[in-house]
Amino acid sequence: MAATSRDVAREAGVSQATVSRVLTAGTPVSEKTRARVMDAMARIGYVPNRAARTMKTGRTGTIGVVVADLGNPFYPQLLEALSRSLDASDHRMTVWVSDGGKNQAALDAIREGTVDGVIFTTVTEHSHELARALEQRSPLVLVNRTVEGADCDQVSSANRQGAGLIANYLVAHGRTRIAFIGGTPLASTTAQRLGGFSDRLARLGHPLPDELVAHGAYTHESGCRTAAQLLHLNPGINALVCSNDLLAFAALDTAKAAGIRVPEDLWVIGYDDIQQSSWRSLNLTTVRQDVAQLAAEATRLLLARLDDPDRPAIRVELEPTLVVRASSAFAPA
Amino acid sequence: MAATSRDVAREAGVSQATVSRVLTAGTPVSEKTRARVMDAMARIGYVPNRAARTMKTGRTGTIGVVVADLGNPFYPQLLEALSRSLDASDHRMTVWVSDGGKNQAALDAIREGTVDGVIFTTVTEHSHELARALEQRSPLVLVNRTVEGADCDQVSSANRQGAGLIANYLVAHGRTRIAFIGGTPLASTTAQRLGGFSDRLARLGHPLPDELVAHGAYTHESGCRTAAQLLHLNPGINALVCSNDLLAFAALDTAKAAGIRVPEDLWVIGYDDIQQSSWRSLNLTTVRQDVAQLAAEATRLLLARLDDPDRPAIRVELEPTLVVRASSAFAPA
Repeated sequence: MAATSRDVAREAGVSQATVSRVLTAGTPVSEKTRARVMDAMARIGYVPNRAARTMKTGRTGTIGVVVADLGNPFYPQLLEALSRSLDASDHRMTVWVSDGGKNQAALDAIREGTVDGVIFTTVTEHSHELARALEQRSPLVLVNRTVEGADCDQVSSANRQGAGLIANYLVAHGRTRIAFIGGTPLASTTAQRLGGFSDRLARLGHPLPDELVAHGAYTHESGCRTAAQLLHLNPGINALVCSNDLLAFAALDTAKAAGIRVPEDLWVIGYDDIQQSSWRSLNLTTVRQDVAQLAAEATRLLLARLDDPDRPAIRVELEPTLVVRASSAFAPA
Repeated sequence: MAATSRDVAREAGVSQATVSRVLTAGTPVSEKTRARVMDAMARIGYVPNRAARTMKTGRTGTIGVVVADLGNPFYPQLLEALSRSLDASDHRMTVWVSDGGKNQAALDAIREGTVDGVIFTTVTEHSHELARALEQRSPLVLVNRTVEGADCDQVSSANRQGAGLIANYLVAHGRTRIAFIGGTPLASTTAQRLGGFSDRLARLGHPLPDELVAHGAYTHESGCRTAAQLLHLNPGINALVCSNDLLAFAALDTAKAAGIRVPEDLWVIGYDDIQQSSWRSLNLTTVRQDVAQLAAEATRLLLARLDDPDRPAIRVELEPTLVVRASSAFAPA
């Protein structure tokens, strides 16, 4: 049987009410009594019941994170960064790995009081749960994937601007026979990167034809299939821009399989700059978004929201940078 | 304000005790009453308080998973598989991303009653928390990394046997000037794979000299440094065996940087067969362990343990297979 606060009181020779005061943040207790109670807890191996403590403080100290798509290394890297930033602010992290349907579980956890708030990393536009949660004013932050017009705190790379950097770079180097591979258009990452890219290309006098834009799943397998189709139907393409690094790795593999030389015949460019992109075997030109900064901002916004639920929603966009590597011939940006 | 069970009782026109009976698993309630209460809950948006329900059933329906090292894609892949197998058995998963110190948080969660049991994926031998948890007979399972002699359920690849397959393969093809790169020797994966490998090599008449074994961290960066040193000090090496795929990718990059041709001059072999290993850019010969099966066994063992805490501990070893790819010249195994 686990020790109870009654056991602690007996062991410390104090009342149960005193034990409870020691366990409640912000309640005045003499240092001597606190030390006596803490010692007693340690001796008998007492772990304060979190649910009981939550009832007193109104906070669990735990933040939920919802993530899908762990096959894309970007998400584990973001998760690790969130774990660090929540740790640094003395919060615990609970993760839901979403295979669909877990958004609701995370939102229920707020209502059930098992987490204080939730950070979503992979929402898509058409989320009914999100709409309902926003109506109910649940404390939540969207990071990486955002929803246009949603009334909540959001953090992402300035995706349109980052994609614009790619357009500038390609046009400056005369690589203008370009195709684009996206993930689901319901994800803001694909929508904004494609939008920013094609707008900038059009402004530079090289509009991107519809038939040179293809969408698939955010997986290596889907990326290979999509890249193979595009390259087969349009053998003249000399640059393939992908809405994330995972798809760009697939494009590199597809080019290799087809005997197309990268970067001589084809430039391949991604977005994210995940750790793998700097590996010599992959060596991908990409747009860098800093996961540590994404995580720090998301944490900061959520904790500020918990302190002040009525604060207006904030939209943070982090400055992207183009990182040039061997998949585009080390040409200067 | 969230709806309470009193609101549900009023809405359904029943007593609060009846609502409580409906929410308690295994309590007899007429189908008609159950439907009436469930309808009332749906109408007013009531979410049963999990803590309250836990007090009645003694189970939370939530399993904790502790994972470190998300930079190695093996772990997110295992996490995704665990999420699926726990889902399939109708359990929720809570994840602790361990940066050290989180093992204790997970074990506390068992004692606090917020999870029913914990699956550890990254323990090392010298874990005091684990020893204490085993004394306290906490329901837990070790998966992937195991601890020799620990009195708990454990699941892993048959690492010694898998590493033996690599030794057989190299010797059969005359690649006997071999070096080995491991992660921390405190991880069972490195200890067992190195042990199985060097034992088999010795039996085949090609003992592995100590100076051709190097250990580092389980990261790409560390793998590159270790591989560079080994190759620099021992230019005659014609096979580099790594205790996981992540380190083998680093070995591939290091060979490339040094102008050493793979597989002509050097064979590179990993362990795990993570998704990336089949990518054409990496194309790694490796020993396959099936993450879906690891996850399914870990889930099965933990749920069986919850049902029968006194059952003797079981050690499951999954059969490994050698997968031959371009990093060893597509030579048949």
